[in-house]
Amino acid sequence: MSKFLRVNMKDQSTHFEDPPSSYRFMGGRRLTAQLVSDEVPPTCEPLGRNNKVILAPGLLGGTAAPCSGRLSIGGKSPLTGGIKESNSGGMFGQKLARLGYKAVIIEEQPENGWYVLKIDGRGVSLLNADHLLGLDNYAACESLRKEHGDKVGLVVIGEAGEKQYTTATCAIADIDGIPARQAARGGMGAVMGSKGIKAVVLDDSEAVEFEFADEKLYRESCQKWRKELIEKKKVLTEYGTANLVMTTANIGCLATRNFSYGDFDKKESISGERLAETIKERGGDPSHNCMRGCPIRCSNVYYDANGNHLTSSLEFETIALVGSNLEIDDLDVIAKIDRFCDGYGIDTMDLGAAIGVAMEAGLLEFGDGEAALGLIDEIKNESMLGKVLVQGVAVTGRVLGARRIPAVKGQGLAGYDPRSLKGTGVTYATSPMGADHTAGNCLPGRKGYRPETQEDRDTGVAEGQVELSKDLQVLSTICDAAGLCFFVGTDTVTADYVKTLLNARYGEKLTVEDILQIGKDTILTELEFNSKAGITSAQNDLPAFFREEKLPPRDTRFDIDPSELIEFYENWRE
Amino acid sequence: MSKFLRVNMKDQSTHFEDPPSSYRFMGGRRLTAQLVSDEVPPTCEPLGRNNKVILAPGLLGGTAAPCSGRLSIGGKSPLTGGIKESNSGGMFGQKLARLGYKAVIIEEQPENGWYVLKIDGRGVSLLNADHLLGLDNYAACESLRKEHGDKVGLVVIGEAGEKQYTTATCAIADIDGIPARQAARGGMGAVMGSKGIKAVVLDDSEAVEFEFADEKLYRESCQKWRKELIEKKKVLTEYGTANLVMTTANIGCLATRNFSYGDFDKKESISGERLAETIKERGGDPSHNCMRGCPIRCSNVYYDANGNHLTSSLEFETIALVGSNLEIDDLDVIAKIDRFCDGYGIDTMDLGAAIGVAMEAGLLEFGDGEAALGLIDEIKNESMLGKVLVQGVAVTGRVLGARRIPAVKGQGLAGYDPRSLKGTGVTYATSPMGADHTAGNCLPGRKGYRPETQEDRDTGVAEGQVELSKDLQVLSTICDAAGLCFFVGTDTVTADYVKTLLNARYGEKLTVEDILQIGKDTILTELEFNSKAGITSAQNDLPAFFREEKLPPRDTRFDIDPSELIEFYENWRE
Repeated sequence: MSKFLRVNMKDQSTHFEDPPSSYRFMGGRRLTAQLVSDEVPPTCEPLGRNNKVILAPGLLGGTAAPCSGRLSIGGKSPLTGGIKESNSGGMFGQKLARLGYKAVIIEEQPENGWYVLKIDGRGVSLLNADHLLGLDNYAACESLRKEHGDKVGLVVIGEAGEKQYTTATCAIADIDGIPARQAARGGMGAVMGSKGIKAVVLDDSEAVEFEFADEKLYRESCQKWRKELIEKKKVLTEYGTANLVMTTANIGCLATRNFSYGDFDKKESISGERLAETIKERGGDPSHNCMRGCPIRCSNVYYDANGNHLTSSLEFETIALVGSNLEIDDLDVIAKIDRFCDGYGIDTMDLGAAIGVAMEAGLLEFGDGEAALGLIDEIKNESMLGKVLVQGVAVTGRVLGARRIPAVKGQGLAGYDPRSLKGTGVTYATSPMGADHTAGNCLPGRKGYRPETQEDRDTGVAEGQVELSKDLQVLSTICDAAGLCFFVGTDTVTADYVKTLLNARYGEKLTVEDILQIGKDTILTELEFNSKAGITSAQNDLPAFFREEKLPPRDTRFDIDPSELIEFYENWRE
Repeated sequence: MSKFLRVNMKDQSTHFEDPPSSYRFMGGRRLTAQLVSDEVPPTCEPLGRNNKVILAPGLLGGTAAPCSGRLSIGGKSPLTGGIKESNSGGMFGQKLARLGYKAVIIEEQPENGWYVLKIDGRGVSLLNADHLLGLDNYAACESLRKEHGDKVGLVVIGEAGEKQYTTATCAIADIDGIPARQAARGGMGAVMGSKGIKAVVLDDSEAVEFEFADEKLYRESCQKWRKELIEKKKVLTEYGTANLVMTTANIGCLATRNFSYGDFDKKESISGERLAETIKERGGDPSHNCMRGCPIRCSNVYYDANGNHLTSSLEFETIALVGSNLEIDDLDVIAKIDRFCDGYGIDTMDLGAAIGVAMEAGLLEFGDGEAALGLIDEIKNESMLGKVLVQGVAVTGRVLGARRIPAVKGQGLAGYDPRSLKGTGVTYATSPMGADHTAGNCLPGRKGYRPETQEDRDTGVAEGQVELSKDLQVLSTICDAAGLCFFVGTDTVTADYVKTLLNARYGEKLTVEDILQIGKDTILTELEFNSKAGITSAQNDLPAFFREEKLPPRDTRFDIDPSELIEFYENWRE
């Protein structure tokens, strides 16, 4: 029943396939990893005809499971040269699953022309996209909603994707139909642009009904889980991801001044508390859900001082990399840059890191929000500096002759300095995705599945962090495979629910171990692809300055034994 | 007797070492490969404190062996991220050997300050280099000759090396004391800059006498070889390397218009014949020797239309990449760019390739020499475009969004299109150095050491080219290890002379097989370093356009089986 849609952009032909049975318990990142591994030549050029873009909902996608509407977008990354899965909330993932799709596989390239891929209950079509070219994601979504109805799911690329910039995102429309969610990392928007696809439109009004082996158990488990999440995730509901500004600053790992400090003296100005307060004052929404039925509602709708919509949603990673990392303490400036990036289709994180390097190189001053806003024009006008910045922090650092470049495998770090959050440093260093906090973020209180793991381990101490990263990489990958937002928890509770729900749906007898194995298999599949693409464990380390320079105020260094990073995944292979 | 000099730039200490006996038959590239492999952490940052710069003369360096004065400069490349040996003629290599040095190993970094490393018969000193900073290589050499005498050997870096641009060269003064020779590839000038070394000055007036087991045999063999070379290399003597303009155009492999054509309609204007004629008319020297005693004299001294010195020396690779590759048919324009590059200390090849990509991207017109000259100001003024170009063709292509980027492992191709010179394409793809013609250039008439190799194989046909590249990579490496200019011939005649001379010098009984093994061991050592640095055989291929686009006029494609490239070195390991 659940099917593959294959779209060949060379001749604009489309066809459906029944997935081989070996793909049965694959969804989301597990599925994109396998399809990329099976179908994309590892050494192909990421923006050439042999790469593919794969859109896949998770294994629980479209069901009543809480936060299960993430959409995975997979392919070979033009930013890292390795395998990439970037997932996002919004409405598309749910709808794709509800329409009976296991994956959409976009292949080859057109001679010329731009297309909208339209999918509905009756079939698939490729429509002319000329009228959308050059539109930013907000305008494009508006235009597409007018044409195709307010309830469609949307994946759109901005001008950055059209121009195939290697930090280009795929924007996913949220519950309001605006491009508030971004599959931002690794340049998957550029790959979509290289296929001549400006947007994918999904009308699920003729959605299929799922069948369940035990519908009652499924429904009751979802309700129980939902209640637990409402109870446990109050901080996220109240302050969104921005709650992490104070949390990270307090443990000395908030990326500040191009990763020179772990605390920002003006952190209160950009904190989750201040954000929620500002939003409430201006009539925005401090607790919004990006997808239907989310009980956590960590998203927000940010209005400017005049009470007009400015951006949806302002998240911690943007606040850290465009805020504290640049010593910018003005939420409005950060929100304007966020809005530009969401519209133009650029990863706020890699751009923020790139601007940090540019500030350190003296092109503009740390803390100068107006100068940072000026870079938007550089990008829009395609000045040489603009062209450099949109290639991300690694290229920007190279061109500017920087010695402190916060990137691993070509991708910029998230807002956590790895010297005082060492487990996340291990994840940055080892993940097949390049530096990626979502691959296994070892914040205080996160515990792995090993009995010996301390819940409140000191994040600035090396002991146990390698094991913790390993555990959380598996548990995070389970979320990515199931289509779950990882805010449900990267823990064994989640693994247990995933097990229960899959068994209730398919009448299987999967164990938690089986579920953990899905996570491990995903990562091993990705590593194998990377190895064939020429990316090896030799690249499993952080830039030297994280080992050589002490991070104030805690004076931590990244002191994880390099051999533990190189051998990180070895025991899974046995 | 032959010793190592170790220079620690952290505390500016120097000391001498007797090399371990295992290094006995190592010199030049064989020695730099081993020292880098033994002493440089493969994943270190190339411009950080853990990289080293190693200067080594060849095994025959400083003796009467013809063309034996090459200097190898080794380290980890900031351009490719892999191991690098870039060698060059000029006087330094001979002098270093004559002073009894097997290698100079420069380590660590100073807190601040710039130094001249001065070596003479009495010892070593590190002198203040402030007065040389910002000087181009011509001015720096002049200043150093004034201070230290006209007969010193010089290695100098220009502003590009001071700024640590990843295409920065090390300039080596020629027999006239001017920076006419460049160890140009892979950014070794940047590594030297990262050590705070502006120049190395060598006074060999107190040179040591070599001992020979059989001096008569040594001398007679050198004389015989010398005579043969004078006879065999007349074309090089008469027209220099530029003789290859017509040769390559005639077989359809002269890089033209950013590797879009294999022939240039204005090739006569930039040919070796025209070059020699122009030089003679203006009172330059069409047949100059870069080192003392060279019987080939392929170098030249190029004067401008007013009879003033413009550049020494104008070589084929520059003429191809800055000439035909840009459709520039004016030797004076090419010579001006060459002079700028030699002075500023930038690789003409990677810069020429980068300008080709910029022309294709529409920044300037193909054939517009004035616009190309204008880029010199962009570089000097450190405009953003200038900063991009000096990072070489791979970064330039990335920033400009180019899809046709002629580079392998981050290094730009030489002037031979690999579709019509497939064996050299195999070398580009597989050499641990990245795209590098000197690693094994499979021009017509070059034969390997396998009996079945045809001497006049069609260079546009795949058959036999893999084996030929393999043979020539070994034979070229023997030249690099012996300190020989590879114009003596990358063939078994050379291997046989090397064997004879080493035996005559050391009283050994080495066979030609032993000599070939030196070449193989060098490459295997380099591959092992690269593998640990994260560069694997997965990267052994050319950019896709060489396989996908036909090259006029012969309509060739690069059609070597990719698996043959991935497995290229496998059988040596058995």
